[in-house]
Amino acid sequence: MEPGKDVMRIGVAGLGTVGTGLLKLIAAHGDRLAQRCGRRLVVTAVSARDRAKARDVVIGADVTWHADPVAIAADPRVDVVVELIGGSDGPAHELVKAALQAGKPVVTANKALLAHHGTELAALAEARGVSLNFEAAIAGGIPIVKALREGLAGNGIERVAGILNGTSNYILTHMAESGRPFADVLAEAQDLGYAEADPSFDVDGVDAAHKLSLLASLAFGTAVDFDGVAVEGIRAITPLDIAYARELGFRIKLLGLARPTSEGIEARVHPCLVPEGQALAHVDGVFNAVVVAGDFVDQMVFEGRGAGQGPTASAVAADLVDIAHGLVLPPFGVPSAALRPAARSPIANREGPYYLRLRVLDRPGVIADIAAILRDEAVSIESLLQRGRATESDDGVAVVMVTHETPEWRMIRAAARIADLSAVLEKPVMIRIETLEKTQ
Amino acid sequence: MEPGKDVMRIGVAGLGTVGTGLLKLIAAHGDRLAQRCGRRLVVTAVSARDRAKARDVVIGADVTWHADPVAIAADPRVDVVVELIGGSDGPAHELVKAALQAGKPVVTANKALLAHHGTELAALAEARGVSLNFEAAIAGGIPIVKALREGLAGNGIERVAGILNGTSNYILTHMAESGRPFADVLAEAQDLGYAEADPSFDVDGVDAAHKLSLLASLAFGTAVDFDGVAVEGIRAITPLDIAYARELGFRIKLLGLARPTSEGIEARVHPCLVPEGQALAHVDGVFNAVVVAGDFVDQMVFEGRGAGQGPTASAVAADLVDIAHGLVLPPFGVPSAALRPAARSPIANREGPYYLRLRVLDRPGVIADIAAILRDEAVSIESLLQRGRATESDDGVAVVMVTHETPEWRMIRAAARIADLSAVLEKPVMIRIETLEKTQ
Repeated sequence: MEPGKDVMRIGVAGLGTVGTGLLKLIAAHGDRLAQRCGRRLVVTAVSARDRAKARDVVIGADVTWHADPVAIAADPRVDVVVELIGGSDGPAHELVKAALQAGKPVVTANKALLAHHGTELAALAEARGVSLNFEAAIAGGIPIVKALREGLAGNGIERVAGILNGTSNYILTHMAESGRPFADVLAEAQDLGYAEADPSFDVDGVDAAHKLSLLASLAFGTAVDFDGVAVEGIRAITPLDIAYARELGFRIKLLGLARPTSEGIEARVHPCLVPEGQALAHVDGVFNAVVVAGDFVDQMVFEGRGAGQGPTASAVAADLVDIAHGLVLPPFGVPSAALRPAARSPIANREGPYYLRLRVLDRPGVIADIAAILRDEAVSIESLLQRGRATESDDGVAVVMVTHETPEWRMIRAAARIADLSAVLEKPVMIRIETLEKTQ
Repeated sequence: MEPGKDVMRIGVAGLGTVGTGLLKLIAAHGDRLAQRCGRRLVVTAVSARDRAKARDVVIGADVTWHADPVAIAADPRVDVVVELIGGSDGPAHELVKAALQAGKPVVTANKALLAHHGTELAALAEARGVSLNFEAAIAGGIPIVKALREGLAGNGIERVAGILNGTSNYILTHMAESGRPFADVLAEAQDLGYAEADPSFDVDGVDAAHKLSLLASLAFGTAVDFDGVAVEGIRAITPLDIAYARELGFRIKLLGLARPTSEGIEARVHPCLVPEGQALAHVDGVFNAVVVAGDFVDQMVFEGRGAGQGPTASAVAADLVDIAHGLVLPPFGVPSAALRPAARSPIANREGPYYLRLRVLDRPGVIADIAAILRDEAVSIESLLQRGRATESDDGVAVVMVTHETPEWRMIRAAARIADLSAVLEKPVMIRIETLEKTQ
């Protein structure tokens, strides 16, 4: 296959789920893509850890196999490099750097890589005048990178938020449906292949934080600041809290949220109570959704599959189509030299309502003591549930509260004082309530 | 203002809600746009029916006012023409043709114009090598044109559907909330400025059909075929049907739906019962939503404000940003010479479940007669409600049915035979049920 204006030659590093999905997509839609790009997309080189592995896609004899993925960057038969190896460092990082240095556009699905090295790689891409596209790194097939970089470019973005990790959302959805605890549902998800053997990146919020750090840069024109994201996962969520939340009119979701404040970017990933009237409350299972609020466009919701072979391959293909169209944009929308350093607004400054669940001794005066602490800390209660009577084993009773808008540092102080009461039997459970969507 | 690589000079024809919104957006986000485009966007010429009208935006003394909007096309100080006049013919059509013929890119929000002349104007734009962008013509600020043309380009699109008219959705939402009839709620919407004095384009489905014809072309690579859209509006929807639908687990929405079939494109706009578990059922008021199913990406939902100054200006700005980026694509994604003529699949071939409401005399044997007709026509009933007893005035009783999947021509034949029964007091009400979304 010779280079030329009629053909764009692609090297694919990594032939796992997404890589084989991309080969299938190019095979299935070769004519469609050629028509829409004005050029034919042809895979000319690949690399995979295990060449012999059975794959449900045909790799032609004219495709060069590279033992070393980084060698794809130097392959003269490759115009564009697709990095689907994964990992924030190692061969993925080497390959992307080498390709950009060689003046070749890069498409990657690697959020960890970009969360850690995005600003530096963007600068390299711009210096060489080539694209570094990463639609597949965030929210699977949802074209949210394109929406922020192009479709909503005329807006000051006021907030970007969403359900960014399908595994966590699957687990929370199934906990809610079955009433079973986190560990059980995680084990089942692992059996079904929806969760990794080491689930930490997903259930501890790291993967969502990688994606949120990229969304924040795209939305606010700030340098990628993964370390500035406050992260909390879903391991501590119990069926009891899911049930109380439901009773109070909420669903529990792991959200990533970022917004600019006068102090800097507030960026956080943690479980939230979401009012059940809002779209995000109904995004279940492995689906993702992103909510963007812009000063002109108002609020938009994008929903779709957040992972999987087809959706991720679709996003990689979209990035290739842009390259075939000759569109070269700064990876984060504004030139990387103009990306502002991301000043941080600490999560202690977060203001909003809170869900607070306590287990207390069933004796007179307990509620009065708790109420006095909340009054002293200026935390105002919107609703309160008290449930059950203590059993003979003196197990305590549940007290569940929803507060009005309160600064987080006040809640933390109040919760610590409440925890010190002798009648309070467990560390209080505190979950932030997020009311994202404006009403009609 | 001199031409140059650093500046893109814009002529805006039409200074109504959207036009003034665009001027506000460019004034508010001049630096942001310059940073994201690499060029400053400057309005150098305008045209409006009434120059003296008070507008809440400052138009500088260096801006040329054109009495004739078509003159903007020839203004040497204009690089890009924005058409916000409206109407399928007349000055809007003249202006767009003249601008493209002069080799100037055009941005328009005019769905009527494109529904009637889109294929021909696209060919003209391509012949001159310039853009004809129309993000603002469909679903307000939702970047759905970009999503179909670029973000989902690697997919065979299996269906595109949505709530495409905010006025109708506002009326249906308020009918459902208030229990009041169509005419009352329409009058109120007119008072509030949510509906035009002549509401026909909105409530009779024409506006949604304009948009659907464009979505179908973008999705399926077929020539724009507005006349091929089967159209039915919401005037016949009653509070009674909304209430029964709710009882059966559905909301009534005006949807536009298009999909390719073996016979051709099936494209239709009509009221539908949507299961309340689906996202579209909860898109209320003036919001729009578009659902796209692709063979790789699976199903995506895009939701946002479908009209209004800010969202529409945001979409126009996005189109200008693409032009500033030098991105020139065929308006409908594939070159217009390659757009296939849109063969049509008639709505009589539609297959799906139906809601059927009858008013019948309360006497023995009536249900048996109806059931016999349905059996003869091979229409199978999923559920049946019978309500109320006849009053002394012999007003009849309601019989409400939900059918299993049935070809439309069978339903029409069955309904006609049922209408002929002497015990049936009114023309049967038949509403299609659409279950768009796949489950997780």
